[in-house]
Amino acid sequence: MEKKLLAKPLIKGIYAELKDKIAALNTEPQLTILLVGQDPAAEFYIANIEKRASKVGIRTDIKKLPTKIKEIELINLIKELNNDDNINAIMVQKPLPEQIDDNLIAETIKPEKDVDGFNPVNLGKMLLETECLLASTPAAVMEMIGYYDIELSGKHTVLCGRSHIVGKPLMNLLINKQEPGNATVTVCHSKTANLSDYTRQADILITALGKARFIKEDMIKKGVVILDVGTNEIVEGDSTMYVGDVDYDTCYQKAAAITPVPGGIGSVTTAMLLKNVWKAYSSQKK
Amino acid sequence: MEKKLLAKPLIKGIYAELKDKIAALNTEPQLTILLVGQDPAAEFYIANIEKRASKVGIRTDIKKLPTKIKEIELINLIKELNNDDNINAIMVQKPLPEQIDDNLIAETIKPEKDVDGFNPVNLGKMLLETECLLASTPAAVMEMIGYYDIELSGKHTVLCGRSHIVGKPLMNLLINKQEPGNATVTVCHSKTANLSDYTRQADILITALGKARFIKEDMIKKGVVILDVGTNEIVEGDSTMYVGDVDYDTCYQKAAAITPVPGGIGSVTTAMLLKNVWKAYSSQKK
Repeated sequence: MEKKLLAKPLIKGIYAELKDKIAALNTEPQLTILLVGQDPAAEFYIANIEKRASKVGIRTDIKKLPTKIKEIELINLIKELNNDDNINAIMVQKPLPEQIDDNLIAETIKPEKDVDGFNPVNLGKMLLETECLLASTPAAVMEMIGYYDIELSGKHTVLCGRSHIVGKPLMNLLINKQEPGNATVTVCHSKTANLSDYTRQADILITALGKARFIKEDMIKKGVVILDVGTNEIVEGDSTMYVGDVDYDTCYQKAAAITPVPGGIGSVTTAMLLKNVWKAYSSQKK
Repeated sequence: MEKKLLAKPLIKGIYAELKDKIAALNTEPQLTILLVGQDPAAEFYIANIEKRASKVGIRTDIKKLPTKIKEIELINLIKELNNDDNINAIMVQKPLPEQIDDNLIAETIKPEKDVDGFNPVNLGKMLLETECLLASTPAAVMEMIGYYDIELSGKHTVLCGRSHIVGKPLMNLLINKQEPGNATVTVCHSKTANLSDYTRQADILITALGKARFIKEDMIKKGVVILDVGTNEIVEGDSTMYVGDVDYDTCYQKAAAITPVPGGIGSVTTAMLLKNVWKAYSSQKK
């Protein structure tokens, strides 16, 4: 296994495969993205999705909506998109403003078009290990594990974070009986006492904390494999940069392998989203 | 906290409350139970549900179906029950014969009537911590934790078992942000290497392995709280008896508290099922 677990070779293959599959369709699957309010980071992320989508032959339509949009207006819009046969996939960019209930929005999106994978139907099917649309970030972690042949079975996998978007779905995937899976999983979070007692036990450490460089060298075991889901904006001097939840420079030597930030899990996430668009399209055309 | 965590005081309160609530309705909610094939243990369990249901004012109808029933026949029957407004709750007794796909059956039952809590919609909502019908056994464990005021937050809770029926839903409930919740959870299973390395760390140990007296004294830490979900039939001499996954006699002294088998989690499960029938009824009459 390489020491630096880069997204690049992995996503190259995924995009090439997607491009071929879509070219064979003689039509372009359509992804509609709802962006509520203004957020430079979200716009940057979406611009990247747009660029990647266009390269593989997926049509994107970005609907920019006002920050003050009422919940019912957003719900009605989603219902229209659900009923529009020309739209194969719907993505709602997070975070949503306060007046909007994330879960209600997720429940409104038709499961077959829910490329975010947050509709209860998709989450429940994930838990039951049946065919579904998986949330992109947990799927990206599993894809990375599969690509780099990281042995999970029976290994102590310590997952830091229990968000609905990453930690919780991922925990379910890690203990699945399908390969890669079968890990012995410990889930830590903000209420965990003595976090490093757990992180030091990890054969595989997955961090989804959203805390810049939080995991230091003394919190890991020699030979650990680290998958860093964090993408945290920090300002150093005049420049703004993105770093992971793991203090990469000090942990690199001690780890057997580690995903960089950027260029790691985050880059795979977009590929997983676009793979979902293809999957959604295919299931609708069956 | 009592050392012996009995179901009795807890379910007494639940049944009394249920009886009062149902009496106030001037109608009897109806639970339909589908029993495929012949299985003395299942029939015994269902007879107990019937008895308890009748005492609180829930009408039960047990449909005994042949072992060789075709999957499509069972599905069509469930669809009829889904559409019958006089039926508020549907339960399908496990295990189902080989020709029937458990997950497909769970998906067929209308989420509002799914008192087993295995429909993906209910499982997904559980993961999102929104209102849903929870599977009875995981709910029974959480109810026991709540009733006996077992502190979960930040405690190392080691869960042995990852079935779709118990382990997986339970793992999600244990790390929820609602109380009781917020546990640091480790999930072990058949692929876990050196199980006792984990069980010995547990502040709270939950076993759902289905292996009679598997957990011995040397596998636990002094002062652990044990919740034993196992109900295993064993034959000793001329008598058949039920024991848990934990070797109760040797572990009792070392533990701070422990649920007996029988008279522990299993007895709370039926109460949780009937509470679900009430919940299902209420949501349908809203």
